[in-house]
Amino acid sequence: MKNFASKSLAFGFAVTLLLGAVAPAASVVEHPVTSAIGVTPPAPVFTDEQRHQELATRRARVAQAVGAKGTLILFSAEPRVYANDVQYYYRQENNLYYLTNLKQKGITLVITPGNSVAPEILFLRKRNAFAEQWNGRMYGAEEASRVSGIREIWDASELGPFLRALKSKQPYQPKPENILMSARSGETGASSGFEKLFEAAGKNEADLYLLAAGQPEGPEYRQEFRTVADWGQGTGYRVQNALPIFANLRLRKSPMEIALMQHAIDITNEALQRAWVVAGSAKWEYEVDAEVIYTFKLRNADHWGYPPIVGCGANATILHYIESQSPLKPGDLLLMDVGAEYEHYTADVTRTFPVNGKFTSAQAEIYQIVYDAQEAAAKATRPGATISDVDRAATEVIKDGLLRLGLITDKASSQHRMWFMHGTSHWLGMNVHDVGNYGSKLEPGMIFTNEPGIYIGPDALNNLPKSPENEKFIAAIRPAFEKYKSIGVRIEDDMLVTENGVKWMTAALPRKVSEIEAFIARARTR
Amino acid sequence: MKNFASKSLAFGFAVTLLLGAVAPAASVVEHPVTSAIGVTPPAPVFTDEQRHQELATRRARVAQAVGAKGTLILFSAEPRVYANDVQYYYRQENNLYYLTNLKQKGITLVITPGNSVAPEILFLRKRNAFAEQWNGRMYGAEEASRVSGIREIWDASELGPFLRALKSKQPYQPKPENILMSARSGETGASSGFEKLFEAAGKNEADLYLLAAGQPEGPEYRQEFRTVADWGQGTGYRVQNALPIFANLRLRKSPMEIALMQHAIDITNEALQRAWVVAGSAKWEYEVDAEVIYTFKLRNADHWGYPPIVGCGANATILHYIESQSPLKPGDLLLMDVGAEYEHYTADVTRTFPVNGKFTSAQAEIYQIVYDAQEAAAKATRPGATISDVDRAATEVIKDGLLRLGLITDKASSQHRMWFMHGTSHWLGMNVHDVGNYGSKLEPGMIFTNEPGIYIGPDALNNLPKSPENEKFIAAIRPAFEKYKSIGVRIEDDMLVTENGVKWMTAALPRKVSEIEAFIARARTR
Repeated sequence: MKNFASKSLAFGFAVTLLLGAVAPAASVVEHPVTSAIGVTPPAPVFTDEQRHQELATRRARVAQAVGAKGTLILFSAEPRVYANDVQYYYRQENNLYYLTNLKQKGITLVITPGNSVAPEILFLRKRNAFAEQWNGRMYGAEEASRVSGIREIWDASELGPFLRALKSKQPYQPKPENILMSARSGETGASSGFEKLFEAAGKNEADLYLLAAGQPEGPEYRQEFRTVADWGQGTGYRVQNALPIFANLRLRKSPMEIALMQHAIDITNEALQRAWVVAGSAKWEYEVDAEVIYTFKLRNADHWGYPPIVGCGANATILHYIESQSPLKPGDLLLMDVGAEYEHYTADVTRTFPVNGKFTSAQAEIYQIVYDAQEAAAKATRPGATISDVDRAATEVIKDGLLRLGLITDKASSQHRMWFMHGTSHWLGMNVHDVGNYGSKLEPGMIFTNEPGIYIGPDALNNLPKSPENEKFIAAIRPAFEKYKSIGVRIEDDMLVTENGVKWMTAALPRKVSEIEAFIARARTR
Repeated sequence: MKNFASKSLAFGFAVTLLLGAVAPAASVVEHPVTSAIGVTPPAPVFTDEQRHQELATRRARVAQAVGAKGTLILFSAEPRVYANDVQYYYRQENNLYYLTNLKQKGITLVITPGNSVAPEILFLRKRNAFAEQWNGRMYGAEEASRVSGIREIWDASELGPFLRALKSKQPYQPKPENILMSARSGETGASSGFEKLFEAAGKNEADLYLLAAGQPEGPEYRQEFRTVADWGQGTGYRVQNALPIFANLRLRKSPMEIALMQHAIDITNEALQRAWVVAGSAKWEYEVDAEVIYTFKLRNADHWGYPPIVGCGANATILHYIESQSPLKPGDLLLMDVGAEYEHYTADVTRTFPVNGKFTSAQAEIYQIVYDAQEAAAKATRPGATISDVDRAATEVIKDGLLRLGLITDKASSQHRMWFMHGTSHWLGMNVHDVGNYGSKLEPGMIFTNEPGIYIGPDALNNLPKSPENEKFIAAIRPAFEKYKSIGVRIEDDMLVTENGVKWMTAALPRKVSEIEAFIARARTR
C-alpha cells in the first residue's frame, strides 16, 4: 500500500532450499509445490510476565499523558456487518488492543490516573453458557486478567451507570455480584478514588479522553461520537481526542512489537515466494491471489492488513487494484502488494515480477529506476532524518530515470507526478497507514515503507487537460510513452530505523532483477 | 450455518477420479495434492440479453408491488471499514444487486411505476480519472446500462436535489451535463412524469418505499434510516418498508438464480473434498480452513457467505466456532460448515468427518442418527409442505435416536433441545439466512438447508440449573453422556424444492459414513 522513507544492508538472500518437490496434478489442483520457498519461522512467543510488563508500560505512558485530572474511556470496536446477521471476523480496536491484548467485543477500559484506588477498570461481559454454545468461548475475569494484567474487572452492565456517575461527579458503587475481580482484597469495589477527578471537574479542569473526539465523524468510533454527544456541555470535563496520545506512542515500536511485525513480514515473504511459483501456471490473477490468502491462513495470520493487490500488465498501473479478475499474460509484469496481519500488526510488501520469469529490457529499465530509488531512500534513512528526506532522495532518482528514458522533459517541473503519483513512505504498524506525525524526526524503532513506483498508465496522456503546453509535452514524450506503456512497477520494503541507519525487515525476499529471475527459474523447475 | 427440509433422490456420487497425484513436499508445503477431488465445473454464463430479461422481470414485479402511487429508493451498500482507511471488499446491497447486477458503491436506483416518462432512474458517479488511477475502473453510463439494462442514468450529484423535489412534489430537471444517458431520444431529462405520484401525495396516498423503513435501527441500512428521519412527517408520503416485497420475490428462485447457487455449492463441494485430504496431514484447524478459503478464491468465488466453521473434537459442539485455533486430533471428528458465495449467492454445506478417516463406533452412532434425520427431512419435503413439517420430521428421528442411545429419558419433553438446539432448516440465497416467510408453503424454486445435528457439549450437564428433577435426569443419562461426550455432528445439505419433491443440490459430496471413509481412503492414498 502506498501513501506518501535507508542505509542499505547487504541484501540477505535467505531462501532455504529443500528437497522433495513435485509437479502438481494435471488440471485438478493448481497448487504450488516447490522446494525453494522460504518457510515462515515459528511465531514469536512471550510469557505472561513479559506481556504484562509490556502492557503495564504502555498503560503507564498513556496514564502519564492523560494526567491526574483526566480519565480515558476506550471502547472496543463494533462488529462489522457483512450482510444481515453475518459479520466479518471480529477485530479489536487497535488502541484498546495495544493496552490490553484482549480480542473480545463488548469490552471497555477506563483509565483514571488520579484514582489511587482503581486507576484501571475493565468492563467485561459475564460469561453466558447459551451465548458460548452458539458463538464460542468468552473470557472469564481470570482469563481477561491473565491476558491483560488488569486486576479490577466489572461486569459490562455497570458501564452505563458508572459513566453517568462520572459525569455527575458522584462516587459509584457497582453491585457486588458485578465485581468480577478486584485488586483490593476484602473490599467490594471502587466506590471512591475519583475525588481528584471530580475536584478538577468542579473547576472545569478535568479532561475526558475519547478516541477521535472532535474529529469529523467517520465509520469508526461511533460509540465515541455518541458518548461525546450524550455527555453534553457544562459538566466540568474538557472533551479531548485521545488519538494523538496513542499516535505518539505507537510510532515508536518496542522490541515485542518489532518481533510481531517481523513475523507478519515473514509470512508475507513466504506468500510472495509461493505466488511467484504459482504464477507460472496460473491463468488468472485471482488464482495467484488465492495462494496469498492461503499462505496467510496456513501460517495463522489474523487476516490480511489490507486487500491483496494482484495486478497484471496495465492493471499494475492502478494503485489499489484489488479485483484480481484479469488473465495473466506471460510477457507482462505482475505487481503484488500484499501484507499479512499478525496479532494486529501488518506487513506491507510489494514485488513486481514477470509472469514468465524473465524481464524484458523495457521492463527491466523501469524496474531498475525504482530499485535505485529504493536504495537512495534507504541511504537517506538515519536517526534525525525525516520521511520527507527519504521521499526526496527516492524522488530525485525517479526524476533522473524518467528524464533519461524520455518520459519527462523537465526535472524541475512536477511532470514526474504523472508516473509516480504517490509518496515514497508511510508509517507501518497496527494500521497499514499507521498513526504518527509525518514531521517526526526518525528514531530507532520507527517502521515505515520504502515504496517508490513508476506507473505508465495507458490512458495517462488522454487524461491530460488539453493545452498547447501539454500538446508539446505529449509530442516530446510520445515515443518513450509508447515504448513503456502499460508497465507498472512498485517495489516496497519495510524499514526499521536503527541506531546506525536502517534494517530492511523484508531482506529475505529477492528484490534485484537477477535475484528474482534466478529464484523463479529455480523454484519453477520442479 | 444453522437457524431453524425432501424426497431423496438416489445419492449421486459424482466425484471424478484423475491420475497424477503426488505427495506434498516434506514440511515446506502442507498442500493437498490429490487426484480424487471433484473439480468445480465452469461457471454458468449468461448473455446480456438473458440477464436484461431476468432483471427487467424482477424490476417489473417490484414495480407491481410498489404500485402507481409509490416510489422505491434503493441505496447501494455503505463500504465496511476494516480499520482506519482500509475497507473490506465492497459488497453491493443484495436487493439493489437483485435488480441491477451492479457492484459499485455510490449507486442509487429509483423506481416510480406511475411515471411513464422515467419509471426507472439510476444515479451513478461520473467516471473520474484520478479516482480510477487510485482505486480502479468505474462504470461509465454505457457499461452500467449494459450490465443492468437500465437506460435512464443521471449523475449521483443529482440525487439529493431530486429527492428534495420529490418530497416537495415539484417536477425536477437535472442539469443537462448530468444526464449521462436517457432512454428518450431528443429529450434532455425527466422533468415530468411524476404527476401521478404527486397527485397521490396530495391526498396522503403516496407510498415511499425504503429498505428496513420502520424496523429497529441496525448496522445495515443506515442511509435508509437517515432518509426516513430527514423526510419527516406531513409530506403526503406513507413511508413503507420495502424488504417484504423483496423477501417475497427472492424466496422463489429463478433458473438463473438456481444455476448461480449450484455453482456456489459446487465450489464449496470441491473445498470440502480438498479439506478432507488436507486434514490427514494438517496439525491445526486453521490449516484446513486455509484450504477452504484458498479453494473459494481459486474458483473465483466472491467471498465466503459466512466465516468458515472448522471445529475439531469438542469445538464441533459450538455452533458458530470460527476461531480455528485448536490442534487436530486423529481420533476426533472435524465439523466443517462452509459456504462459498458466487455472484451474491451463497452455499451453506456441513460435513463432519473423522480426522484419521475412520469413524469410531460411538461417532458413527451419532452420525447415523443425524443422517437418518436428514433423510426424513428430505422425505417430508414437497410442494405444499412447510419448513415446520420438515423440521418435525427430522426432530422425530433425532429424538428416537437420542432415546435409543440413552441421552434423553423422555421423548415427550424438550430434553432433546439440549443436544439439538437449533432448527433443521433456513432459507438460503443471497443471504445465508435468506429472506422469506417461514410460514410459506413450499413451492418449486425455493431453496433451504437440511441440517440436523447432535452436539454433546462437554459442559452441558454442568450448565443445567440445579433441581431435583435435573439431578435425576443427569443420573439417568450420565453413562451415555460419558460415552458420547464432546462428539458434535452436523450434516447440512442444500435442498431445492421441485415439482415432485426435492433436489439435493449438494448430492455430489459424499455423505454416508461408508462413502466418506472410502473417499478419504482413496484420496489420501497418493
